[in-house]
Amino acid sequence: MAPFEQLTEDDLAQAWPLLSPEDRVAGFRMLRPEEAADFFLTRSTYSQVTILQGLSPNERQLWLRLLPPDDATDVIQEAPAELRSELLLCLDVKTRNEVTGLLAYAEDDAGGLMSPRFARLRPEMSVDEAITYLRRQVREKPETMNYAYVLDREQHLLGVASLRELLASNGTKRVEEIMQRDVLVATERTDQEEVARLIAQHDLAAIPVVDEEMHMKGIITVDDILDVFNEEATEDIQKLGGMEALDVPYMQTPVLPLVKKRVGWLMVLFVGGSLTATAMSRFEDAIAQAVILTVFVPLIIASGGNSGSQATTLVIRAMALGEVKLPDWWQVVRREFKSGVLLGLGLGAVGFLRVAVWEWLFDSYGPHYLRLAFTVSISLLGVVIWGTLAGSMLPFLLRRLGFDPASASAPFVATIVDVFGVVMYFTVAQLLLAGSLL
Amino acid sequence: MAPFEQLTEDDLAQAWPLLSPEDRVAGFRMLRPEEAADFFLTRSTYSQVTILQGLSPNERQLWLRLLPPDDATDVIQEAPAELRSELLLCLDVKTRNEVTGLLAYAEDDAGGLMSPRFARLRPEMSVDEAITYLRRQVREKPETMNYAYVLDREQHLLGVASLRELLASNGTKRVEEIMQRDVLVATERTDQEEVARLIAQHDLAAIPVVDEEMHMKGIITVDDILDVFNEEATEDIQKLGGMEALDVPYMQTPVLPLVKKRVGWLMVLFVGGSLTATAMSRFEDAIAQAVILTVFVPLIIASGGNSGSQATTLVIRAMALGEVKLPDWWQVVRREFKSGVLLGLGLGAVGFLRVAVWEWLFDSYGPHYLRLAFTVSISLLGVVIWGTLAGSMLPFLLRRLGFDPASASAPFVATIVDVFGVVMYFTVAQLLLAGSLL
Repeated sequence: MAPFEQLTEDDLAQAWPLLSPEDRVAGFRMLRPEEAADFFLTRSTYSQVTILQGLSPNERQLWLRLLPPDDATDVIQEAPAELRSELLLCLDVKTRNEVTGLLAYAEDDAGGLMSPRFARLRPEMSVDEAITYLRRQVREKPETMNYAYVLDREQHLLGVASLRELLASNGTKRVEEIMQRDVLVATERTDQEEVARLIAQHDLAAIPVVDEEMHMKGIITVDDILDVFNEEATEDIQKLGGMEALDVPYMQTPVLPLVKKRVGWLMVLFVGGSLTATAMSRFEDAIAQAVILTVFVPLIIASGGNSGSQATTLVIRAMALGEVKLPDWWQVVRREFKSGVLLGLGLGAVGFLRVAVWEWLFDSYGPHYLRLAFTVSISLLGVVIWGTLAGSMLPFLLRRLGFDPASASAPFVATIVDVFGVVMYFTVAQLLLAGSLL
Repeated sequence: MAPFEQLTEDDLAQAWPLLSPEDRVAGFRMLRPEEAADFFLTRSTYSQVTILQGLSPNERQLWLRLLPPDDATDVIQEAPAELRSELLLCLDVKTRNEVTGLLAYAEDDAGGLMSPRFARLRPEMSVDEAITYLRRQVREKPETMNYAYVLDREQHLLGVASLRELLASNGTKRVEEIMQRDVLVATERTDQEEVARLIAQHDLAAIPVVDEEMHMKGIITVDDILDVFNEEATEDIQKLGGMEALDVPYMQTPVLPLVKKRVGWLMVLFVGGSLTATAMSRFEDAIAQAVILTVFVPLIIASGGNSGSQATTLVIRAMALGEVKLPDWWQVVRREFKSGVLLGLGLGAVGFLRVAVWEWLFDSYGPHYLRLAFTVSISLLGVVIWGTLAGSMLPFLLRRLGFDPASASAPFVATIVDVFGVVMYFTVAQLLLAGSLL
């Protein structure tokens, strides 16, 4: 790119993650007006806030008014507290009232995602009237038009007609004849993950949100749900990695808050892990007699941790997708026990070979190498079975206790398995090696 | 539920994951016809195949013809090889030709997701003509009608008009006056993750797929993308857990294939992990002199593994979301180095306290406990820094080499860090404890 060439939307989007807040605003101001609007609308809420913070109050008003009310609500929720009331005042009165209403909902509830702007019809209209009426509404309402909601005079939801069905129907039919009465709805308090599942499973473009008396409150559209999917998957993945979920994209989180999100779990795991030191101290005599035993400790506990990590990952993801529910725990135990036995036999066999081959090649383990090989492979079998069981059951236990099952991270499971692995290995050793190495 | 009561769609959906293939088909046959259709259409491709396999050829034809061509293609791709040609023959000639065309694309390419049924307009139509024309098309085409694509006689894509814009426009305007010419497109070979990103970022309801000469081939709709999001997140999460991604939901994967997906990585990690045994053997003399050293080995290597797991998870997810790209590696190194130093100092301090407090309470470590405490805490600092750096760089390295960065699973990183941790710990011990414990 030659210097002073016109900056394009794509250039800026490419460089965005690497720019400081000041450079972002400067770059944004260099865009041509029509590109700037598109650029602003396709940014994440977080980036929109960054841009707005850097602009003058007049510019802020211009850009904030571009957003539909549900997105404006997200921006105001994300903005620093001191900026919020000023941003609210930037909106026109009608939108401000809608946004103030939406701000009352928690961000993760259906109410926090919904837009109050949707297409309405009356049941007694003819299809032709409905289409004409929609053509008028669409000029005023920026939100989706895939479905028109049929409401009575008290705003009760009677049914829904997709634009496709309206267009495909004979123009003289009445709306109530063609509308679908059996409507899938969310309430204001439905969790956003549940809404996402409903929309995905039934391939909807939007879902209506109602209160307990079926009064229509707004709609949630599929494009808001795409963001929910990504957010929820990111949260789960970060928790699985053994940390708190970040609220802000990785590259935009400064180092100190990043460390804060990580240090908590690291400390918890460290304290849990220090039990391995306590456990090993109890076997100090055995270690002193047979130092060779200790060299396999990291390998054995890592194998338990790895198989536990696999099991917990599988179960947590299946739970998030709704494939596995609490009552299925016994079936999961049976599956994981069988898997654990097979995996443990496999690793046990390889462990046996490892000891035998090293003895044959390097003469490493002395005359009792066969007993040592059995100790290693039996411990591997036990620790892998325990790892898969602990890893698969921990998410159930956490959910049962009301915690997020995704907190059963791979490191968490590994720590639990480590302590058990140490005790198991030295106990097997004392049984098998008594009178020889010990 | 009383026996012999009518089975509902919801009952069956609830029980579904727990049923055998035979019971699924039996349950499906018990649904009332209107519920059965809805049930069939909202199942996953995998479940649709299960149902079709259990039905008679006549029933199969009935149900398969319910599916739009892109979904029928997915079913045929997923079906066992011996069933495929029979399923193809169930389709009517027009759909069969469309499906045969779609089968040529890989499932993960844009071509494999697209539907050949979309609404077309000519540029010279008036808006009123266009709406009337669409009302006729919509009766024949089951796919989305959010956008109408404006094509010339050779099927080149000239522009796109959303149904909203058409409805909102003056009826006498010409389509080419209101259509948007600057259309975002995918090509047949665009990866589905990239398509998902385009659709999500620009809040599209559908994206057109074209060949190199801008001939219109089909569209990909947002509901297909929801499935892609979930699939891709599931794949990444399972890989992060240290295994191959399953192709089929967890509860529907029989134990043997499940074990097969897990055993490969477990073996690789085992062989890698057995390097810790080799490394520790080199320090056998030190261990024999100071058995107390060994009790901290699991704790120290686990801390490195945990901090590595956090770092690799953060980077892999940021890569999947497009927040971090290959050229950003140096910025990530700097961030993770700083984070690693802070986290390492924190854990090092706690490790120091752990040794000091235990000495004070239980007299565990003898007169040289201070040196031991320094050894533990310096090793912790080193291993945590190494863990965060290795964990954050491994995904870059894998991507650079053309592998999937998500293969840098938590267990993989932990294994790399373990070997380093053992060497680091005993080396520090030999330096600090020479002349005292050693």
